[in-house]
Amino acid sequence: MTEHTTRVDVGIVGGGPAGLMTALLLKRRGISAAVIETRTKDTIHRTQRAGILETATVNMLVDAEVGSRVLTDGHEHEGTVLSFDGEQHRIDFQALVGRSVWLYPQNEVFYDLANAWECEGGEIHWAVTDTQVHGVETAAPRISFTDAAGQTRSIAADLIVGTDGSRSMCRKLIPESVRTDHFISYPFAWFGILCEAPPTAPELIYANSELGFALISQRNESVQRMYFQCDPDTDPESWSEDAIFDHIQAVLGTEGGVQLKRGPIIEKTVLPFRSYVCDPLSHGRLVLAGDAGHTVPPTGAKGLNLALADVRALVPRVEEFITELRASESDRAGSDRSGPEGETPDGEAPSVETPEPLRRYSRTALDRVWKAQNFSYWATNLLHRQPEENSFTHRRRRGEFDAITGSVHGQAYFADSYTGWSD
Amino acid sequence: MTEHTTRVDVGIVGGGPAGLMTALLLKRRGISAAVIETRTKDTIHRTQRAGILETATVNMLVDAEVGSRVLTDGHEHEGTVLSFDGEQHRIDFQALVGRSVWLYPQNEVFYDLANAWECEGGEIHWAVTDTQVHGVETAAPRISFTDAAGQTRSIAADLIVGTDGSRSMCRKLIPESVRTDHFISYPFAWFGILCEAPPTAPELIYANSELGFALISQRNESVQRMYFQCDPDTDPESWSEDAIFDHIQAVLGTEGGVQLKRGPIIEKTVLPFRSYVCDPLSHGRLVLAGDAGHTVPPTGAKGLNLALADVRALVPRVEEFITELRASESDRAGSDRSGPEGETPDGEAPSVETPEPLRRYSRTALDRVWKAQNFSYWATNLLHRQPEENSFTHRRRRGEFDAITGSVHGQAYFADSYTGWSD
Repeated sequence: MTEHTTRVDVGIVGGGPAGLMTALLLKRRGISAAVIETRTKDTIHRTQRAGILETATVNMLVDAEVGSRVLTDGHEHEGTVLSFDGEQHRIDFQALVGRSVWLYPQNEVFYDLANAWECEGGEIHWAVTDTQVHGVETAAPRISFTDAAGQTRSIAADLIVGTDGSRSMCRKLIPESVRTDHFISYPFAWFGILCEAPPTAPELIYANSELGFALISQRNESVQRMYFQCDPDTDPESWSEDAIFDHIQAVLGTEGGVQLKRGPIIEKTVLPFRSYVCDPLSHGRLVLAGDAGHTVPPTGAKGLNLALADVRALVPRVEEFITELRASESDRAGSDRSGPEGETPDGEAPSVETPEPLRRYSRTALDRVWKAQNFSYWATNLLHRQPEENSFTHRRRRGEFDAITGSVHGQAYFADSYTGWSD
Repeated sequence: MTEHTTRVDVGIVGGGPAGLMTALLLKRRGISAAVIETRTKDTIHRTQRAGILETATVNMLVDAEVGSRVLTDGHEHEGTVLSFDGEQHRIDFQALVGRSVWLYPQNEVFYDLANAWECEGGEIHWAVTDTQVHGVETAAPRISFTDAAGQTRSIAADLIVGTDGSRSMCRKLIPESVRTDHFISYPFAWFGILCEAPPTAPELIYANSELGFALISQRNESVQRMYFQCDPDTDPESWSEDAIFDHIQAVLGTEGGVQLKRGPIIEKTVLPFRSYVCDPLSHGRLVLAGDAGHTVPPTGAKGLNLALADVRALVPRVEEFITELRASESDRAGSDRSGPEGETPDGEAPSVETPEPLRRYSRTALDRVWKAQNFSYWATNLLHRQPEENSFTHRRRRGEFDAITGSVHGQAYFADSYTGWSD
């Protein structure tokens, strides 16, 4: 067995954007990492994902030198359009808060990060099975798995980073006595389509009417992404192409205003969503980042941005932790050569406290997570129709829409939140 | 009977601030008005009411020359304090939006307006009974009532203004086929006290914790007003003085921060609340203004301000309507002397359409009403604990609090709404 054990500073479970970005940034600071992922690289790359990147996210990709595709293939959006009962208002991000967002699909962000990690010779195992994480409450945590070739392997590390997505198995290693699961569900879902058509509009349109929510997004010159609010139980096949476009057009308003560009629909999916936060994000020698630690509804476009904000908060704290650990090990090596720290006579490592830098990561990251959770919840409730909504609620939401769009302060509050606050 | 009939341009049902301000401003424009009120002047004046006046409200009182007491006895507040789980943040209205609010009780606003109207010889009947409003769908509406001396009387007018408060009888004259009642209730109420103590703080403190909402307000140097969230069924006598102050202190936080100034409690009341909007606010020869047309929860301090904003929107439209009416009557008098407009052979006036200026009043006023409804609803939900609230909701509200207090855009959005938007 021992010949298949890798020894690194940090073992990372989950090779999505959060895990790969963590690996890359740690490497830049001289901290070694290895990554495992249950899916193949190609599967993740081919899974269509929307993507609105905050300025800070784009800066992070550029600073990490993962290629400039986001700048060449991505589209800068200096604003967005909010539509209520057919009335459109543009929110001018640049004029209001001096920041833009970029339209660039999440699966392309993944691809750039994965290529960068592989080109730099970073260790990554795709399509692994039988993943288990051991000893996160000890000083010697370890990941065991079977690689794509069927070989059982093990990664020994000082710290495990769980970036294994919303169905995280790492999260479950934080005992329920320690962990609080903050959770709400929503009584609706998104019906998403990809269609072969030119863009309907140059920027995203977040629309609402008595019929509920719709989002007009873009992909490229010939393929577009659109969504509309539906019941979570909806069968995608129960909606014809005409019915879908007629419905989205009705949400946008049929008189004047935006005229939908239609084309053959090449993908239909129903996306249920929820709000979830795991608290804390650190326990012993385990930390969580990205969807493993929290899920937001997609309305605020915060998911990927929040995952990478976690990484920004995490990496300096991991460096601090690893530096302290090396210093204490070298102290001990100088004064006592009796063996590795704290190994007990029977060879089992004793349980360790959560290192303070990792506790600090959890607190810092969660502050932003809750602002983003609130924005995502708020935008969702502003723009969606509740199944049991009465006339007060609809008109009240319209009042909120007017308060946001009708004053520079309301617009700036929206723009600041949507583009990711100033860090 | 005829000797007790007054003939005016506008008959006003309800002698609160909205009704009196309407009467005064119409008189300034040469339009005659008469007011009736079911309570005595003294009863209204002695009923303790909180009062946070927007700049526009104060300007209106000053412009209407109803005395300068608001400026000498009122207290200008250039900001307010928001507190969440014991953590305080000041919102600096002046720095953010260049406006203040004034602390000046609503019952004193009433008193100033009532005195001004009476000094100018305006017709007002206090303590009336048997009020009935007739013919609002005709060109000859009329108010009948019994005055305080037991004399039956009648006010004939071209227009009736219903400013008869949240239990408005005028509102019911808009047929249900025309009227939409937009309504929601809240699963909590406010427990309000008046106590003999010096002010705890120079500005209002809106506080929230796991225990719910509390508001520290002021009255003068020796009497203070405070509130805390309670169950709507609470018996005021079930809470002792110590229990009340201990609870409010707990909401404010017991460590560091604000130390409550205690003193004998001289009044205890439980105030249930709700959100309500009547749409439209005009029908035939009737318009509604203030609480008769809409009720807000008190959290946003919008009730009186919204009533006077209605009056600002209403008065120019009434002038327009009366001017058009006089012009058409004088046209008719010149060309046809056969009698008053449209009187049918049997003496009953035919029904009239709602005049366009009054329809416009309804639309203009409701736009602001819904912004204020949204702000009041939003502030209520931010600062109150829902009975069924789960941990996500509490932390999400904390995230919203941080989003508001933690950025200049969030602060400005709050300050702009609280101080009444720019008109």
